[in-house]
Amino acid sequence: MELVTISDIEAAAKRVADVAVRTPLLLQTWDPRGTLWLKPENLQPVGAFKVRGAFNAIAALDDAARARGVIAYSSGNHAQAVAYAAQRYGVPAVIVVPDVAPRIKVEATRAYGAEVIEVPIGEHEGKARELATERGLTLVPPFDHAAIIAGQGTAGLEIAEDLPDVEVVLVPISGGGLAAGVGTAIKARCPGAQVIGVEPALAADVADSLQQGRLVRWPQADRAKTIADGLRSQPSELTFAHLREVVDRMVTVTEDEIREAVRVLARKARLVAEPSGAVTTAAYLFHAEELPAGKTVALVSGGNADPALFAEILAG
Amino acid sequence: MELVTISDIEAAAKRVADVAVRTPLLLQTWDPRGTLWLKPENLQPVGAFKVRGAFNAIAALDDAARARGVIAYSSGNHAQAVAYAAQRYGVPAVIVVPDVAPRIKVEATRAYGAEVIEVPIGEHEGKARELATERGLTLVPPFDHAAIIAGQGTAGLEIAEDLPDVEVVLVPISGGGLAAGVGTAIKARCPGAQVIGVEPALAADVADSLQQGRLVRWPQADRAKTIADGLRSQPSELTFAHLREVVDRMVTVTEDEIREAVRVLARKARLVAEPSGAVTTAAYLFHAEELPAGKTVALVSGGNADPALFAEILAG
Repeated sequence: MELVTISDIEAAAKRVADVAVRTPLLLQTWDPRGTLWLKPENLQPVGAFKVRGAFNAIAALDDAARARGVIAYSSGNHAQAVAYAAQRYGVPAVIVVPDVAPRIKVEATRAYGAEVIEVPIGEHEGKARELATERGLTLVPPFDHAAIIAGQGTAGLEIAEDLPDVEVVLVPISGGGLAAGVGTAIKARCPGAQVIGVEPALAADVADSLQQGRLVRWPQADRAKTIADGLRSQPSELTFAHLREVVDRMVTVTEDEIREAVRVLARKARLVAEPSGAVTTAAYLFHAEELPAGKTVALVSGGNADPALFAEILAG
Repeated sequence: MELVTISDIEAAAKRVADVAVRTPLLLQTWDPRGTLWLKPENLQPVGAFKVRGAFNAIAALDDAARARGVIAYSSGNHAQAVAYAAQRYGVPAVIVVPDVAPRIKVEATRAYGAEVIEVPIGEHEGKARELATERGLTLVPPFDHAAIIAGQGTAGLEIAEDLPDVEVVLVPISGGGLAAGVGTAIKARCPGAQVIGVEPALAADVADSLQQGRLVRWPQADRAKTIADGLRSQPSELTFAHLREVVDRMVTVTEDEIREAVRVLARKARLVAEPSGAVTTAAYLFHAEELPAGKTVALVSGGNADPALFAEILAG
C-alpha cells in the first residue's frame, strides 16, 4: 500500500496556506511541568483541523469534477469543512450526515451553502456513495484518502517548524487521517519525537488494533458511548497502514478526564474545545506516567462543542 | 508631550518576539457580512495583551534596576503580565492589587512567583508608589508609560502586517495604553484605516473626554458598575494625548451586548473572552450603523473570565 510522503504534505501546505489559519503553538505558562504547548486547531474556519484536508482534496479536482460538485459523509466537522471549502472554491456540495449529529454542526454545514441530507446513523456512508454515483459527484471521504491525510499532515509540518526540538506530539485518533498525516510529518522532520495517539477508553479500537497488529472492529453502539463524538470512527486500511508506521504508542482517557480537560482548556488556555479536541490535553494532564517527559505538543483538534453540553461541563 | 512613534513600536516588536505569541488574525466565516477578523490576544501568556507592554518595559531596565526588582499595581491582567515577565527575566516582583480583584487573577499572579499585596480599591496606586520608594523598586505602570504603550502597539503592527488593507480596527479603551499603541501603529502603517475605540456605556469616560476635548473624570463608583472589570480605568495625560491623535471615533456598548458577545465568541469563534475582551465584538455585532463598512479587526484583549461568571453568561 502506498503511503503519503513528506513531499505530499509539503505540496498540501502550499495549497492550504491561503485558506487555513497558520495556528500558533501556545506555551501553557500555568502548567507546573512547563512542557505543554497547544496547537489550537479549533481556531480554524469551521472550528476544526478538517479544513486542511478538505481544501487539499478539493484543490486537486479538475474543472469538470468541480462543476459537477462534491459529496461527503460525516458526523460533524468534516461535513462543515467540505461545505466551507466547496463554497470557497465555488463548487456545489452535498453532505450526508447521521441524524444523531449535533444540531450545531448540521446548522453550520447548511449555513455554508451545502445541501444537507440526514439519514439514520450507520447509513450515511452508503447513502453518500449511492448519491455520488447517481449524480456524478466526487466523494470527499473524511479520512480514507491520500489527499485528506496529506492535508491534515500540514498541522504536523507547522509543529515541526515552530518547535523543532519537540519531543512528544499528542494527537487524537478516530478515523486516523489526522494522526497519519501529522505522524508522517513529525517522523520526517523531527525523527527523535514520539507520536502518541489518544483515544477515549470507550472507543479505544486503535489501541486494541495496534496491540493486536491488525484492524480490530469495535461495535458502533459501544463506540457511540463516549462524549467525544468526533472520535467514534475507525481507521480504514489506508490510515491504519500509516498509524502502524508513525504512531509510537497509544494512551486512552476516561470520560471524566475529558470533561476536566475541557474545563482546563477553557479556564487556563482560554480555548473552547469540543470533548474530542480535549483528549490530548487529558492525556497530558492525567497520564504523565505513560508519556515520555519533555517538550509536548497537544493538538486541540476542534471546538464545535454543543453549547448546552459545554455550559454543563463548565458548571461541573 | 512626546508621543510614542512607530520606531518605538518596531523596537518593542523585536524585544517581545520571543516571549509574546504572534497571534493570528482569525477570519470569522460564520459572519454574514464576512468582514470580521479577530485578533485573539486572550491567547497570550497570562491571557491578555498586557504581556507585550510588560516585557517591553522590563527588557529596558538596567542590571541594577533588575536586581532590585519591579512593582506594579493593577486590578488584574497587568498584574499577571508583570509577574510573568519578571519571572521570565529573573526579576523580583511585587504586585499591589485592589481587594475586589477577581480571585482567578490574584491567584494566577501569585503562581508566577510575585509577592501580592491586597489593599482597598482606590489605594493600590498610592501603595505601589510608596513601596517603590521604600524598597527601591521600579514601578511598571499599567499604561502611563512610553514603553508600555510601545509594547502594546506591537499588536497593531501585527494587524498591519497580516491584513494590510484593513479598514477598521476596533480596540477596547480603559487606561488607553493599548489603543494608544495600536492606533499609532495602524495610523503609521495603514493610514486609510479607521481606529475606533470601544467602551462599556457604563464607563464611557473616554468617549466623553474626546467629545469635550479634555480629560473628563467619571466617579470610580460609577465606572465600577460595568461587568467589564478590565475597562474601569481612565487614561493618563500621556495616553489621552495619543488617543486624541489616533482614535477616529468611539462606540459604547451595553452590558447585555457584552454578555452576548462573550457567548458568540465562545460558540462561534471558540474563544474564551473576558467581558472586557468582548466589547469590540459587541461593537461589530450590535453597532454596525456607527461603523464604516469594510474589513474589520476586533481585538479580543483578554480571556481571564471568572469561571463562575463565564459559566453563568454561557447559560444565559
